[in-house]
Amino acid sequence: MEKPLKILHASLTNRVMVELRGGRGYHGTLDGYDVPHMNLVLKNVEEMENGESIGKHNTVIVRGDNIIYVSP
Amino acid sequence: MEKPLKILHASLTNRVMVELRGGRGYHGTLDGYDVPHMNLVLKNVEEMENGESIGKHNTVIVRGDNIIYVSP
Amino acid sequence: MEKPLKILHASLTNRVMVELRGGRGYHGTLDGYDVPHMNLVLKNVEEMENGESIGKHNTVIVRGDNIIYVSP
Amino acid sequence: MEKPLKILHASLTNRVMVELRGGRGYHGTLDGYDVPHMNLVLKNVEEMENGESIGKHNTVIVRGDNIIYVSP
Amino acid sequence: MEKPLKILHASLTNRVMVELRGGRGYHGTLDGYDVPHMNLVLKNVEEMENGESIGKHNTVIVRGDNIIYVSP
Amino acid sequence: MEKPLKILHASLTNRVMVELRGGRGYHGTLDGYDVPHMNLVLKNVEEMENGESIGKHNTVIVRGDNIIYVSP
Amino acid sequence: MEKPLKILHASLTNRVMVELRGGRGYHGTLDGYDVPHMNLVLKNVEEMENGESIGKHNTVIVRGDNIIYVSP
Repeated sequence: MEKPLKILHASLTNRVMVELRGGRGYHGTLDGYDVPHMNLVLKNVEEMENGESIGKHNTVIVRGDNIIYVSP
Repeated sequence: MEKPLKILHASLTNRVMVELRGGRGYHGTLDGYDVPHMNLVLKNVEEMENGESIGKHNTVIVRGDNIIYVSP
Repeated sequence: MEKPLKILHASLTNRVMVELRGGRGYHGTLDGYDVPHMNLVLKNVEEMENGESIGKHNTVIVRGDNIIYVSP
Repeated sequence: MEKPLKILHASLTNRVMVELRGGRGYHGTLDGYDVPHMNLVLKNVEEMENGESIGKHNTVIVRGDNIIYVSP
Repeated sequence: MEKPLKILHASLTNRVMVELRGGRGYHGTLDGYDVPHMNLVLKNVEEMENGESIGKHNTVIVRGDNIIYVSP
Repeated sequence: MEKPLKILHASLTNRVMVELRGGRGYHGTLDGYDVPHMNLVLKNVEEMENGESIGKHNTVIVRGDNIIYVSP
Repeated sequence: MEKPLKILHASLTNRVMVELRGGRGYHGTLDGYDVPHMNLVLKNVEEMENGESIGKHNTVIVRGDNIIYVSP
């Protein structure tokens, strides 16, 4: 059994896909997270809406509240 | 009587169906969960929207907040 | 006076109807629950949407968050 | 001054109207409640949607989360 | 400085207007409240929807969750 | 660095603009607040919807839950 | 690994972009925040809706609840 936070921790420095409620998504390098909120820090981020790129950011802090899933 | 977490635990390594608010669903192998949030780790995941496959992922961490049900 | 959890406990092994936010419902045999979340385990479940059957499941774990009511 | 829970307690065995978010309502005999969730047990319940009867139940456990108001 | 609960307390026995999410409102005599939920007891209540009267109630217990504002 | 509550405290007796989810706003004199809910007391309030005045109130208690921002 | 709050702290006095649920955004100088709510103080703020400027504010206190992401 793999705990969700262990999988998240093992994904540090890797590219992840983060999907939020409302059709928004972020592709970026996972640079950090906190517990228990699961707020994330992503670097070199491509912001997606309904599957299309809508912008780029060097860094984003994503609030955990809105996250549907994180895919390493 | 079977506690929900006991059923979830017994489903580890099995294929489960996870349905989220908003018409999204995931079929995958249950690889982990946490308590009390019921965040899940799924492997070999097929992502569904309104009954149709919309993508595949090796691993997803699904936040428990959005889960409607888990069906082992 | 009957506490809600006492009524729920007395419904174990009985068929119950569980209605969720968003028009979804489940008919099934109540096999378990937890406190204080009121997550439920249902067996031999018929899934309903707006009054029509849309599927069957051997077992579902329903998150308490989305429940509007449980009717034993 | 009357505390809300005191009014609720005084309504036990009386008919009450419970209105939920989303246009759903329940008329029934208040048979129990819990604290602090304000989950309710209603007996001999008529389920209403936008003012029209849509069904009857012997017993319902209504989750407090969705309640807008209770009117004794 | 006036704390919100002090203002609420000072409004006991007065007519207040309570506006809820979703366009619903209540005019009534404030008969009680609790802390920290800010559930309210109103007496001689006129229920409003989008500015029009849609019903009267002797007593309502309004859950604090849905309140936008209380105006004494 | 200025903590949000320090800024809020410094705004007491000043006119503030409070914007809520759903297009509703309030212009008024900040007369009080509480911690940690950030419920507010406003005096001499103009209620706005989508930028237009829709009413006036001597006093309103605004629940912090619905606040998007407060602008002193 | 960089914790979200450390990144936020390092952004003090810098321009940040804050995106909220519902298409609203704020560009401003980060002047403060609190823990654990992640309420923010922004100065010299441009308010955006769906990518267009809809107003300016000297100061805004943004509630953390509605934040999707903060981009330094």
